[in-house]
Amino acid sequence: KFQYAIKEFTVPLDHFSFLSNASFNIRYLYNDSYADKKNPQSPIFFYTGNEGDIEWFAQNSGFVWELAAKLRAVVVFAEHRYYGKSMPFGSDTFNSSKPEHLAYFTVEQTLEDYAMLITFLRDGRAMPAVAFGGSYGGMLSAWFRMKYPHIVIGALAASAPILQFPGLTPCEIFNRITTTVYQTAYNANCSVNIGKSWKAFETLAASDAGKKQLGDIFHLCDAIKTADDLNEFLDFLEDVYGNLAMANYPYNSTFLAPLPANPVRQLCFYLKDLHQNDGDLIRSMASALAVYTNYTGTEKCVDYKYSSSSTTLDNKGWDIQTCNQMVMPFCSNSSDTMYRTKDWNLREFSEKCYKKFRLTPKPYDIELRYGGNNLEAVSNIIFSNGLLDPWSGGGVLQAPNNQVHVIILPEGAHHLDLRQSNPSDPPSVVDARRREAAIIAEWINQA
Amino acid sequence: KFQYAIKEFTVPLDHFSFLSNASFNIRYLYNDSYADKKNPQSPIFFYTGNEGDIEWFAQNSGFVWELAAKLRAVVVFAEHRYYGKSMPFGSDTFNSSKPEHLAYFTVEQTLEDYAMLITFLRDGRAMPAVAFGGSYGGMLSAWFRMKYPHIVIGALAASAPILQFPGLTPCEIFNRITTTVYQTAYNANCSVNIGKSWKAFETLAASDAGKKQLGDIFHLCDAIKTADDLNEFLDFLEDVYGNLAMANYPYNSTFLAPLPANPVRQLCFYLKDLHQNDGDLIRSMASALAVYTNYTGTEKCVDYKYSSSSTTLDNKGWDIQTCNQMVMPFCSNSSDTMYRTKDWNLREFSEKCYKKFRLTPKPYDIELRYGGNNLEAVSNIIFSNGLLDPWSGGGVLQAPNNQVHVIILPEGAHHLDLRQSNPSDPPSVVDARRREAAIIAEWINQA
Repeated sequence: KFQYAIKEFTVPLDHFSFLSNASFNIRYLYNDSYADKKNPQSPIFFYTGNEGDIEWFAQNSGFVWELAAKLRAVVVFAEHRYYGKSMPFGSDTFNSSKPEHLAYFTVEQTLEDYAMLITFLRDGRAMPAVAFGGSYGGMLSAWFRMKYPHIVIGALAASAPILQFPGLTPCEIFNRITTTVYQTAYNANCSVNIGKSWKAFETLAASDAGKKQLGDIFHLCDAIKTADDLNEFLDFLEDVYGNLAMANYPYNSTFLAPLPANPVRQLCFYLKDLHQNDGDLIRSMASALAVYTNYTGTEKCVDYKYSSSSTTLDNKGWDIQTCNQMVMPFCSNSSDTMYRTKDWNLREFSEKCYKKFRLTPKPYDIELRYGGNNLEAVSNIIFSNGLLDPWSGGGVLQAPNNQVHVIILPEGAHHLDLRQSNPSDPPSVVDARRREAAIIAEWINQA
Repeated sequence: KFQYAIKEFTVPLDHFSFLSNASFNIRYLYNDSYADKKNPQSPIFFYTGNEGDIEWFAQNSGFVWELAAKLRAVVVFAEHRYYGKSMPFGSDTFNSSKPEHLAYFTVEQTLEDYAMLITFLRDGRAMPAVAFGGSYGGMLSAWFRMKYPHIVIGALAASAPILQFPGLTPCEIFNRITTTVYQTAYNANCSVNIGKSWKAFETLAASDAGKKQLGDIFHLCDAIKTADDLNEFLDFLEDVYGNLAMANYPYNSTFLAPLPANPVRQLCFYLKDLHQNDGDLIRSMASALAVYTNYTGTEKCVDYKYSSSSTTLDNKGWDIQTCNQMVMPFCSNSSDTMYRTKDWNLREFSEKCYKKFRLTPKPYDIELRYGGNNLEAVSNIIFSNGLLDPWSGGGVLQAPNNQVHVIILPEGAHHLDLRQSNPSDPPSVVDARRREAAIIAEWINQA
């Protein structure tokens, strides 16, 4: 859809020690066709790539392109190290017998990659750069402006949960918001049914015959044979609910899966009746789930084990990051939410991380470095948050000063404002983009 | 003179990768006797230790103590990793067969040590911390505020040459300022004599007898036997001229050596007459040099090879830092200055660094990370610079905005304002301290 040249840029493996001089290439996408060629000080719109193939973010961040056309900016989408094709150790990057390969997979190394790339692209010219990012990419945009204000004049951090860290935000907030989304999408029976389903699944799966039946009803790719399988399936359902809330856009999209417009409402349509009977409930759940797993009608089975995962978000890479710095506590309580009760336990989490990746999480690293709630000295960041987005609970919802802008989208899902304009956009999103464009234009004028 | 408890704090060896979980202890000095014990939000005055034993900085930064008494602050002096007793690998730290031990000797690692220490000392209390530092320590204070504004509410960066890096400041500026100091200290013959001396030394040292004579006249600890020895001796003289300009305080001091008040003037007294005769010139130089090398009259010989160096600044550690990040170009031109003509050559410099320490300097690292001249987004830093200080050429002399304060001390040598009050202080220093105190008190009031 959007056009660009694909380029590579060499960065040091480790920006912060003098242990090795190793380097590798990160990819970036480049388009200067909107820029005014006669203006040596064209703005640079720089997307701070997050957890996945950068081409996918380029295609899902239409606002950056629209605004670049309007403000005549060079467009750059930079791929995050350890994602897409930006692998520091090539195909050996995630070799589990070489855990030391994961050592340089951090926020700071990534931001420094971006700082070097912008400096290189600028080549001494005074081109004002603006950072853009959504979700984790939005966190990176915000942190980039905080730490490199001499490199980027400002940042649009869309749906950036920079407060979703230990001690800063209650761990149940994500699931509480998701529950609210399901309560209000069609009718309140939706979240009630989901809340009741966990027990129904357990009951059905208590017998081998029931396990078999569950696999058949849901068209699971892998049969449910053990308690672990069942749990994996239930975890998958929880993922789906969160993902659907995130991608709850007012038009068809392919953000996390091919989805209809207002997918939570679609799902909740199948759960509009309160079921007394476990069998009915479970069959309705199967129809509901298909909104996420098989909207195209072409999927053979439901891949709850992510074994042939074709998602464009790289869960593997993200798993690693949650095991070093991006330690985000999630918990839930069945009395407040449609979720099962689950505690957050850092010790257990750390042990799993060590077992999986030989990594010891540093849960307070991000707060120490980026300031947590203490954002008083920050300037020129737009934090936009949709209130339908479960991540908004960890977002910045109050401006610490008048140089930081908070834009709330009551009808917005996960970084809806960063997406291409669409006739179905709710007014709050149209208005948010208009305000964002004005603020960014002002930053550029003042640069 | 000033009292404190000596404590230790454990920090990770490498804050920025997940390669190793190794840790070690840095030292810090602690005194809470000035603090109001009933106030849980006492300010913390935090000296960001630089290249040397931290006790020495504590004793030479009397203003921090005086201001702490006035504003009832807890005083902390933190020792920089790789200096004093804060050795990451103990006595093996500088083992030249283990160059990898030097990998973590960087500004970023050091700042993160300090951020962790303040967070630990605060223990959850809202104690506003102010960073203090002089010279390289002042650079650290300024950068600390830039990167960790959530940790320190402001910084006093005294004589901090944060612009003394490639491409930011002309490499000859240090020697030009020093020359001016010698031109104006007693009479202009001083710098003229020094300018002529290089040739005179070369001429005398052309013969073996002359080399011997030179050693005798200057009471050198090591005889001058080769051209390299001579060059080392002349380099030593250049160091002395710079050091004397830095320590050109209006009262006796022991900053870089035991020195009289106004030592440059003292030295220049011996060079007040224009000598036509090389022998006379060289004998006068010997008397002049003794102002620096033997003010106490107790030194047996002049240690121009630094072989039994007792200086409290750690030249070895600093040499290493100039070979990784602190790449400061120095050059001089004999037509403008009293120095010999010397070029700055990064390639040669890098080769030497690699040979000595297996380190490849990154000359643009500091600019990339801390912004060079682009300080528009910076707040709550006081940059103070004495115009008699050769380092002022690389200092911030113009405020980028009204939240950054530049204080110029026309009669000030190297961070004179950071030293204890003295009856001989010139009015500009007294006034600078008064303004600094007011600004810092205001930061604390607003915190």
